[in-house]
Amino acid sequence: MEYRFSKKAMQGRPAATRVIAARGATDPDFISFAIGNPAYETFPVEAIRRCNDLIYERVPKYALQYGPGQGDRGFIDLVMKRLERVAGLNPENQDMIVTTGSQNILSLTPMTFCDEGDIVLVEEFTYMGALNCMRAQLAVPRGVPVDADGSISLDGIVAACEELGDKIKYLYLIPNFQNPMGVTMTLEKRKAVYALAQKYNFMILEDDPYGELRYKGEPVPSIKSLDVDGRVLYAGSFSKIMAAGLRLGYVVGAKEIIAKMVALKGSIDSGSTVISALIARYFMEEYDLEEHVKNTAALYGLKCKAMCDGLDAHMSSKVTRTDPEGGMFLWITMPEGTDPDEILEKFLENHVGIIPSSAFAPDPAKKGHSFRVCFATPTLEEIEKGTKLLGDVTKELFGD
Amino acid sequence: MEYRFSKKAMQGRPAATRVIAARGATDPDFISFAIGNPAYETFPVEAIRRCNDLIYERVPKYALQYGPGQGDRGFIDLVMKRLERVAGLNPENQDMIVTTGSQNILSLTPMTFCDEGDIVLVEEFTYMGALNCMRAQLAVPRGVPVDADGSISLDGIVAACEELGDKIKYLYLIPNFQNPMGVTMTLEKRKAVYALAQKYNFMILEDDPYGELRYKGEPVPSIKSLDVDGRVLYAGSFSKIMAAGLRLGYVVGAKEIIAKMVALKGSIDSGSTVISALIARYFMEEYDLEEHVKNTAALYGLKCKAMCDGLDAHMSSKVTRTDPEGGMFLWITMPEGTDPDEILEKFLENHVGIIPSSAFAPDPAKKGHSFRVCFATPTLEEIEKGTKLLGDVTKELFGD
Repeated sequence: MEYRFSKKAMQGRPAATRVIAARGATDPDFISFAIGNPAYETFPVEAIRRCNDLIYERVPKYALQYGPGQGDRGFIDLVMKRLERVAGLNPENQDMIVTTGSQNILSLTPMTFCDEGDIVLVEEFTYMGALNCMRAQLAVPRGVPVDADGSISLDGIVAACEELGDKIKYLYLIPNFQNPMGVTMTLEKRKAVYALAQKYNFMILEDDPYGELRYKGEPVPSIKSLDVDGRVLYAGSFSKIMAAGLRLGYVVGAKEIIAKMVALKGSIDSGSTVISALIARYFMEEYDLEEHVKNTAALYGLKCKAMCDGLDAHMSSKVTRTDPEGGMFLWITMPEGTDPDEILEKFLENHVGIIPSSAFAPDPAKKGHSFRVCFATPTLEEIEKGTKLLGDVTKELFGD
Repeated sequence: MEYRFSKKAMQGRPAATRVIAARGATDPDFISFAIGNPAYETFPVEAIRRCNDLIYERVPKYALQYGPGQGDRGFIDLVMKRLERVAGLNPENQDMIVTTGSQNILSLTPMTFCDEGDIVLVEEFTYMGALNCMRAQLAVPRGVPVDADGSISLDGIVAACEELGDKIKYLYLIPNFQNPMGVTMTLEKRKAVYALAQKYNFMILEDDPYGELRYKGEPVPSIKSLDVDGRVLYAGSFSKIMAAGLRLGYVVGAKEIIAKMVALKGSIDSGSTVISALIARYFMEEYDLEEHVKNTAALYGLKCKAMCDGLDAHMSSKVTRTDPEGGMFLWITMPEGTDPDEILEKFLENHVGIIPSSAFAPDPAKKGHSFRVCFATPTLEEIEKGTKLLGDVTKELFGD
């Protein structure tokens, strides 16, 4: 029978990561810098196990019954308190909803603000999962060029606002160690972006899954810490600082917005399991999350350095890279005019997986000439081997 | 600041259950027949704890990392196998997606099939959570009258199809122990409904969270077992047969549909936590789920009988009730012309919570004159006391 699918259901595009992963699965020598999973060795497995067990000692009746749609209040209070310290959050008139990973926020936000055809401003290249969420809600992501430092162009925002006016509902940003580029916005730029949001009256979704994974340089205050109007939503996640499988994220925003999100999420799934939130809550109460985050960031720092050293040693001098101060990704850029989709095959043939910039492009016509490289998932040994494989291809293509 | 919310975000209505629960929370003598939670005493807490622990013994690396968006394959295979037995499922060309409770299905289905303004046929009174899901997706639930036995009218379906044509995307049904009415569709009616779906080319979402909680009468084959075209989606849940807090549901349908749902769910939350599915999988492997379900159904049978006995002893003779053969709910109907919202206060004042039919009405203008009574959550003692409280109000209102 022929199904009559909705417009939403027809928005799906083949995910580049899946295509590359499938390719890798049949190649025993394959080294993947493609998939963006946090390093398993950073997950505090024994502590999670113990915290999980505490649930059955303390609150089985609560944990196993239908729970609060907004999420566990004890978890919310603890994380709000923690965000005052780590993200400069002013909790006044703010609330939080607990979600199935921060991916869930990337979909709840367009649901809450966008009707069909409404615009979301995004960086020229941005997290593909966020683009999928917007498209699945029939919102339209609109790319804004980035400046030479890789962060969003203020002139670009102004031009988009002058053209699109109040069709623009919000600006989606990953200000720390951006996915895919690994770039961090300066405080000055954050202030200027916020001022434009005030001037043109749009919201900002500040997505900060990597913010605490800083291994060099100084932390930059969050955009949320500058928010005097209640126009910034701040999304966080335990995927990278605890364990991705908990599927535990959250967003902080004005009470009025969170109430709408709670109702919408209620209609989607009656709330995420409270078990994951309780594990994280007990972990924060019984263990030292700050110490754990520090160790995780240190490991990513080692991996990032190995990746940068390997690329610098092996890549063609025609290829440039970003220099992340934290997070999981960096961005390598081929000479202008290179079609990343066309040369992808060369890398795969040489047993190394990276993701072409086309996958991160809001506008398929502006696919760029770069690749995302993830250093969080591979081992140091894989990084050493893989950078050689990757570099050899660039030399073959563009000379020494 | 004034937020510019989407149409979806403005669909929310105050949930009757929450209003009544808030009322109950301030009344120490309150007995709730309102909330539809499964009985906590049926949750196999120690076994769940043990199965949870097995995850850390066996597959911590898998469970704590990003998992498959479709859900754990081992869980899917086991449940598909089980459904061949308990729901007459023919697995040919079928697949499954694992979700955050079956509520998640009630939202994925309109996402997959409905554009703004598309119609979903529902019974005259149906699960309020399903109505919320449709509305939040800007689909329009359209009530179809029920026959004297409480199951959907075939003439009503025909009339709706003749009027609305292919604006109708699917029919939502709870054929076993319907929520809120506690009524079960006969096999004859199921066959006739399926034939109409073929004739008018609409899909059917068969929601079966209670089907295994039968304590008298004979099981009726599922509509899915009659499905030769791939037009039935069968939704199930572990909330009522294991523990609601796991937030574990699933839907079975044609491979082509499930693939669309996997992509849509990917955009919503990258998949539910695999931990809940693993707990249920290990429970099915290591324990006797069939025995557990039998015991759960038996307890609900006792509670249902106590509720029926109590109501028959205390209610006004002007009030009728349904006679469920399973599930968690029954339906009491006041004399014609009674406004259920107006008399709700009388029950609350007398310390007993029930939910007026208006909460289950797709069309606010057709709010009926009935109440849903849940017998799963209260204890036998509460049922005994509460039926007296409830009955006294009906006698005061309508005489002996």
